Amino acid sequence: MATAVTEALGTRRPGPELAALGARVAAALAVVLDRELRGTSDAVAGPVRYAVLGPGKRLRPLLLLAAWRAAGGEAGAAPTEGDPAAALACSVELVHAYSLVHDDLPCMDDDVLRRGRPTVHVRFGTPAAVLAGAGLMPMAARTVWRAAGALGLEPVRARRLLSILADAAGAGGMVGGQLLDLRAEGRATTREELERIHRGKTAALMAASVRMGAVAARAPEEVVERLGRFGVALGLAFQAVDDILDVTGEEAEIGKTSGRDVALGKATYPSVLGLEASEQVSRELAGLARRELAGLEDTRELELLAELVVERRR
Amino acid sequence: MATAVTEALGTRRPGPELAALGARVAAALAVVLDRELRGTSDAVAGPVRYAVLGPGKRLRPLLLLAAWRAAGGEAGAAPTEGDPAAALACSVELVHAYSLVHDDLPCMDDDVLRRGRPTVHVRFGTPAAVLAGAGLMPMAARTVWRAAGALGLEPVRARRLLSILADAAGAGGMVGGQLLDLRAEGRATTREELERIHRGKTAALMAASVRMGAVAARAPEEVVERLGRFGVALGLAFQAVDDILDVTGEEAEIGKTSGRDVALGKATYPSVLGLEASEQVSRELAGLARRELAGLEDTRELELLAELVVERRR
Repeated sequence: MATAVTEALGTRRPGPELAALGARVAAALAVVLDRELRGTSDAVAGPVRYAVLGPGKRLRPLLLLAAWRAAGGEAGAAPTEGDPAAALACSVELVHAYSLVHDDLPCMDDDVLRRGRPTVHVRFGTPAAVLAGAGLMPMAARTVWRAAGALGLEPVRARRLLSILADAAGAGGMVGGQLLDLRAEGRATTREELERIHRGKTAALMAASVRMGAVAARAPEEVVERLGRFGVALGLAFQAVDDILDVTGEEAEIGKTSGRDVALGKATYPSVLGLEASEQVSRELAGLARRELAGLEDTRELELLAELVVERRR
Repeated sequence: MATAVTEALGTRRPGPELAALGARVAAALAVVLDRELRGTSDAVAGPVRYAVLGPGKRLRPLLLLAAWRAAGGEAGAAPTEGDPAAALACSVELVHAYSLVHDDLPCMDDDVLRRGRPTVHVRFGTPAAVLAGAGLMPMAARTVWRAAGALGLEPVRARRLLSILADAAGAGGMVGGQLLDLRAEGRATTREELERIHRGKTAALMAASVRMGAVAARAPEEVVERLGRFGVALGLAFQAVDDILDVTGEEAEIGKTSGRDVALGKATYPSVLGLEASEQVSRELAGLARRELAGLEDTRELELLAELVVERRR
């Protein structure tokens, strides 16, 4: 598994801690999909599995699990069937997978390559891609619900988990950010406008992931908020690196069409700040993120993830 | 309001009972959208409002509210702020609005007219339509949650409501049905295949609506199941009428492009059974639905809705 995570991130750094978390996410994802797709026809299940099970970095579920552990969740967990914390982590990957499928559609970014493979609409047709994407949202809600029950969480916390995820996915978060992103194409943009787009498009779901981990661990509100700020800063850093890789990365390495942002006239860190300043900003943001971790108990995995976000090559 | 509901249904029949329910749904929908879209930019809020607030029949929320009353919910409700049962009813309309937006997309049925107005992608562009549609799903989940809290429902019932809606919306329900529907285009289909498509595409959400009303009223399981069967039969009857109107209806009256099913080679009741047998089937299904109501307390509104479904002209 160390190899799988290493390869996905395009670096040699992750080490055994993240590899162990990665293995838990991979196992839970298989279980969640089997359960959710039981009894559905191949026409539906095929594109959904393809969308979710591609060789992704699984950064968001890793963040959720790492935050859960940093906030003491692992220590306080009663022994249960399966791995409910990892199942909860899958919910954010389902929402992320939805966003990738819809981002790539012909009427959106019109992209043919993702995670080193043909995009879902290229492989299964556009209608199947639209519907598979939309089907992932209720699946994510069910997954949160069920995992919250399996973790023995109080209803108020289960409800909080669902609110955090729905807010991040909805008009105020990811969906809003995607729309602002499309509207900004071909227009000059300030750093403030850019970060408003990226906050919604990317940082909202990453921040939701770590906040959900903290809530599931029954962390005090102050810790939930602090991890939320960690997530926002890390999400912006992630997006800065993404923007940089689109300019400097090789297609075979990054697993998606390179130069796509430039071709579409997207608002990106390099287009607004230039390449060098963007690299500087990504490092600053990751540093900002790491400083939020001070005082928390075991933040080794979150620190490793913050490091990987900046140093990744795909 | 009697006039608004009458006009929406294209008949003179509904009477004061349904008009009162319709007024509650309209008021609650305005409140839910205001709350959900607070703080989001016009770029996001515009297409969402347009998608939801068109002159629709509101059949699904009416079914939910009517089932809630038939199962004794109104009698047992404690006085609360606002109208939480009507707010809950809005959740199914949000999911329905999502399905219409996505159904009409250029990559799906490619339709330009809906509810007598240009479709969302014609008015706001395809990317905004895809995203507005997707944003309606988390909005619906949040609406269920909040309404369940306001109704003072036990967590297990709140959870059940969310499961019912997510199942109806997801791969096993509506999304699956839409995909089967697209796959069946241009192919001969049996009545069994046709009803499998319609069960998912249309009947799942109608059945979910009445089941949710019953669960919210704390009805015994037997009543929830019986109303579920009512909803499935009514949903199939509704779809049969829809298919018939596509052939026989005037565009100005039905508010959407007529002859669209035939043009797309869709699997419909008339294409499989012929027009006359389809009319017969729609009446039989509505009768089947009504028989499930025997023994329930106050089913006047559900019976009126069943009548309207068959006699509607749009």
